[in-house]
Amino acid sequence: MFRGGVIVAPASALGGAIAVIRVSGEGSIACCDAVFRGRKPLKEAATHTIHYGNIVDGEQVVDDVVVAVFRAPHSYTGEESVEISIHGSRYIASKVISLLCKQGARLAEPGEFSARAFAAGRIDLSQAEAVADIIAADSQAAHTLASTQMRGSYSETLNELRDRLIELTALLELELDFGEEDVEFADRSRLNDMLCQTTAVVKRLKESFRTGNAIRNGVSVAIIGAPNVGKSTLLNRLVGDDRAMVSDIAGTTRDTIEESVVIEGIRFRFVDTAGIRATDDTLEKMGIERTLKAVEKAQIVINMCEPTGSFEQVSLSDGQIEIRVVNKADTITEREVADALYISARQDIGIDLLRSALAGSIDTTNLYRGEAIVSNLRHFEALEAAYTALTAAADALANNISTELLAEDIRVAINHIGEITGGTISSDSVLHRIFSSFCIGK
Amino acid sequence: MFRGGVIVAPASALGGAIAVIRVSGEGSIACCDAVFRGRKPLKEAATHTIHYGNIVDGEQVVDDVVVAVFRAPHSYTGEESVEISIHGSRYIASKVISLLCKQGARLAEPGEFSARAFAAGRIDLSQAEAVADIIAADSQAAHTLASTQMRGSYSETLNELRDRLIELTALLELELDFGEEDVEFADRSRLNDMLCQTTAVVKRLKESFRTGNAIRNGVSVAIIGAPNVGKSTLLNRLVGDDRAMVSDIAGTTRDTIEESVVIEGIRFRFVDTAGIRATDDTLEKMGIERTLKAVEKAQIVINMCEPTGSFEQVSLSDGQIEIRVVNKADTITEREVADALYISARQDIGIDLLRSALAGSIDTTNLYRGEAIVSNLRHFEALEAAYTALTAAADALANNISTELLAEDIRVAINHIGEITGGTISSDSVLHRIFSSFCIGK
Repeated sequence: MFRGGVIVAPASALGGAIAVIRVSGEGSIACCDAVFRGRKPLKEAATHTIHYGNIVDGEQVVDDVVVAVFRAPHSYTGEESVEISIHGSRYIASKVISLLCKQGARLAEPGEFSARAFAAGRIDLSQAEAVADIIAADSQAAHTLASTQMRGSYSETLNELRDRLIELTALLELELDFGEEDVEFADRSRLNDMLCQTTAVVKRLKESFRTGNAIRNGVSVAIIGAPNVGKSTLLNRLVGDDRAMVSDIAGTTRDTIEESVVIEGIRFRFVDTAGIRATDDTLEKMGIERTLKAVEKAQIVINMCEPTGSFEQVSLSDGQIEIRVVNKADTITEREVADALYISARQDIGIDLLRSALAGSIDTTNLYRGEAIVSNLRHFEALEAAYTALTAAADALANNISTELLAEDIRVAINHIGEITGGTISSDSVLHRIFSSFCIGK
Repeated sequence: MFRGGVIVAPASALGGAIAVIRVSGEGSIACCDAVFRGRKPLKEAATHTIHYGNIVDGEQVVDDVVVAVFRAPHSYTGEESVEISIHGSRYIASKVISLLCKQGARLAEPGEFSARAFAAGRIDLSQAEAVADIIAADSQAAHTLASTQMRGSYSETLNELRDRLIELTALLELELDFGEEDVEFADRSRLNDMLCQTTAVVKRLKESFRTGNAIRNGVSVAIIGAPNVGKSTLLNRLVGDDRAMVSDIAGTTRDTIEESVVIEGIRFRFVDTAGIRATDDTLEKMGIERTLKAVEKAQIVINMCEPTGSFEQVSLSDGQIEIRVVNKADTITEREVADALYISARQDIGIDLLRSALAGSIDTTNLYRGEAIVSNLRHFEALEAAYTALTAAADALANNISTELLAEDIRVAINHIGEITGGTISSDSVLHRIFSSFCIGK
C-alpha cells in the first residue's frame, strides 16, 4: 500500500467543463514543471497559489490549465501536491496523466491519496472511510452521518472510549506488578464501575448501527396488502411527489434504479417493489410467499387494507416496525381501527401523516446532536468483538478470575476499538483491503 | 443572455472524489464569505490564492472545502470569481449552490460563464465554441482541431481575412467619396487581385470543412461486400485491437455506443454496422439496398471481396473514397488486382496497411501545421454565404457594375466572416442560441 513516489490520478469526474488532476508526493512540483509553461516555474510558487499556463508535450500545447500548488505538509495527503484544472475531456486527462508519468509519476492506486493522508497522520481510518460515504450520501441524514465521521468527532468518541479502557488496564497492570506482594491496589468496585460504563458505551454504539445503516443505505420499506388494495398507487404517490421535488439542479439527473424517496432528510427504499406489485395478479399462494419475503427484508412494513378488508398477518422480527394503513378512506365516514392511519392514495389524503410516520420511525435526535453513530459494517463488527471481550472481562471480574486474564480481555477490546480508527492495525494487507475499495483519485 | 449578478454552477462533473463549484460576477467573494468559515474572510484574500475552510449552513458544517479566489479581471469570465472544491457528491453540490443562491447568487444558464468571457472580450465566439469541442474531443486530431480554435490562431486567420476585405472596401469608399469628380482612385486590377486572393482563402476554409467535420465527428466508414466475405471479422479485427489499446486509465470506462476506432489520432466510425452485418444473411435484394445506403452515408467505403470473387459496383459521390480490399489472402499465392490491398482479417495479415490507408485518406498536414480548419457547421455556413457574396463582387468588378453594389457585396462578406468570431453579431437572441447549446457550468 505505502509505496512512495509521485502519484497522479483524476480527482474529479471527467466530462464537465473542467476536471481536476491531482498529483502528490515529493517531487510533484518538479514533475509538473517539466510539462507546464506559465509565467514562472511552479518551483518558485508559494503554497496555496494558483497559476495559469499550458501543459505542453514538447512544443505542442495540450491544454490551457490552472494549476494549484500545495507545499508539504499543507495538503490533503500532507505531501507536496499539485492540482491541475484541465478542460474536462477524457482525452486531455489521459494525455496529461501520461505526460506526468513520463516524468516519473505513476498512476495512483484506488484510495492511495487517502492512504497517504492516513500514513501522514492527517486523518484516521474512519475519517478516510467517511470520505467515500460523504461522496455517496444522497440525503441530508446520510450526509450528516458521513460528515460527523469525516470531521473526527466520531473518532473522538472512540478514542475516549479507548483511553478509558487503557486507564483500566493501567490500574490492573499496577496490581500485577505488585502481585507478589498480594496487594489489591485497584478498588474492585471502581474497576467494575469503569467496566460497566465503557461496556454501556460500546453497547450503545453497536446498537446505533441499526439506525446508522438505515440512514447510510436508506431505510427499506415493504408495502404489503391484498391485491387491488392500492399498493402501487401509494408507491407512485410517495415516489412521484419526490420525483417532482428532485427535478433538481439542471444537469444533475439521477438514474432511478429502484423506487426510493427522501422524507425529512432520510432516504426510504421500497424493497422488491416489482415483486410486491406482481402479487396483484399472481396466485394467492405465491402472493403470500412474496409478502413474507418482502417483510423479511424490510425495516418498515406498511400493512395496507381497504376499509372493508383486514390486515395481513405478519410476524415482525426484532426492530422491525409495522405501520398500518387503511386506504380508500375517502369512501367511508367511520374510522374504526384505532392504531391505523386512514389515507387515500388516489385522492392524496393522509399521505403527509404517513410520511411523518415513516420519518418518525427513524430516531435522528442523536444524529443531529452530532453523537457518534455507527454506519460502517467493519466498525460494527469491531464493536461486537470488543463487546464480547468486555462481557468476558465483566464475568472475570465478577467471578474473581485472575487479573492477568481480566487484563487480557480488556486489551482485546482495546485492539478492536483501535481497529476502527486504524491505530491498532499493523497489517499492510488489511489496510490495503480497506483503501483499495475506494475510488481512484481519492 | 447578458443578465448581470452573481452566477453559480458545478464546473466539473459530479461523482468523483472532488467537484468544483464555480461562482462568478461582482459580489462573488462577499456571497461566498457569507457561507465560508476559514482562517480569514475571502475578502482579504489576494487573487489566485487558495483557502481551506468549511461551507456552513448557520452553525451546521456542510463540507470541508478548498476555495480559490480570482479577482477581476484575472479569471475565465474576466469577473471576480470563486471556485469551491467540494467533496464530489450531488447532495453537497446542491446544498452549496442553494446556500449561495440564498445569498443572492443564481444558478447559471448553460454557457453563461463563457458568454460572460465573450462579453468581457476575453474570448471570441469561435473560441467559446471550441471549449465545447475540446471537452468532447476523443482523438488526437479532434483535440488538436479544437485546441487550435480555442487558442485563437483560427480567429486570427479569420480576422486577417476580414481586415483585408475592410481594406478593400476602404479603397472603394474612397472612390465613392470622390465619385462626382469621376476619378477612379482604386486601381481596378489591384482590386481584382485583392478580391481573388481573399476569395481563394474563403474557398480553402470552406472546403476544409470536409476534413474538419470528419476529424471533429469521426470519419464514417462503410465496409461492403458479398455475404461471408469477412466484413464482420475485419470490423472486429479493427475495433478489437483498439479496444485492447484503450483499456485506458483505470476508472475511465467508455461506453461503446457504436463501433469506432482511433487510427493515427483520427477516429473512424463504422456506419450502420448492424445493417451491414445483417446483409450476411438476408435476401440478396435487401442486401444491395443496404449496401447502397451504407455507401451513401460513408466518407470512406471499404469494398471487400474474396480472391475468387468480384468487387461490388459502387458509384461514389464527390469526395468519397473507396478502398478495395481482397480478403482471405492467406489462401492464395497470386495477387492479381493491382489497386487492391490483400489482407487476411482472420490471420491479421495486411491490416496495418489497411489502417495506414484509412489514416492516409484524411490529410492532417494543415491540421498539425496549425492552419485554420473549419469544423463547425455555423462557421461553414457563414463562409458559404461570404463566398457567394465575394463571387458576386467579382462578377460586379468584371462587368463594371457600380462601385456602390460592389462595396455592398463585400460588406455582406465582411459581416458573414465577422459572425464566426462574433464581432458582427448584434442580436442577443442569436448569441443566446449559440451559448445555450453549451453545458451548464461552462
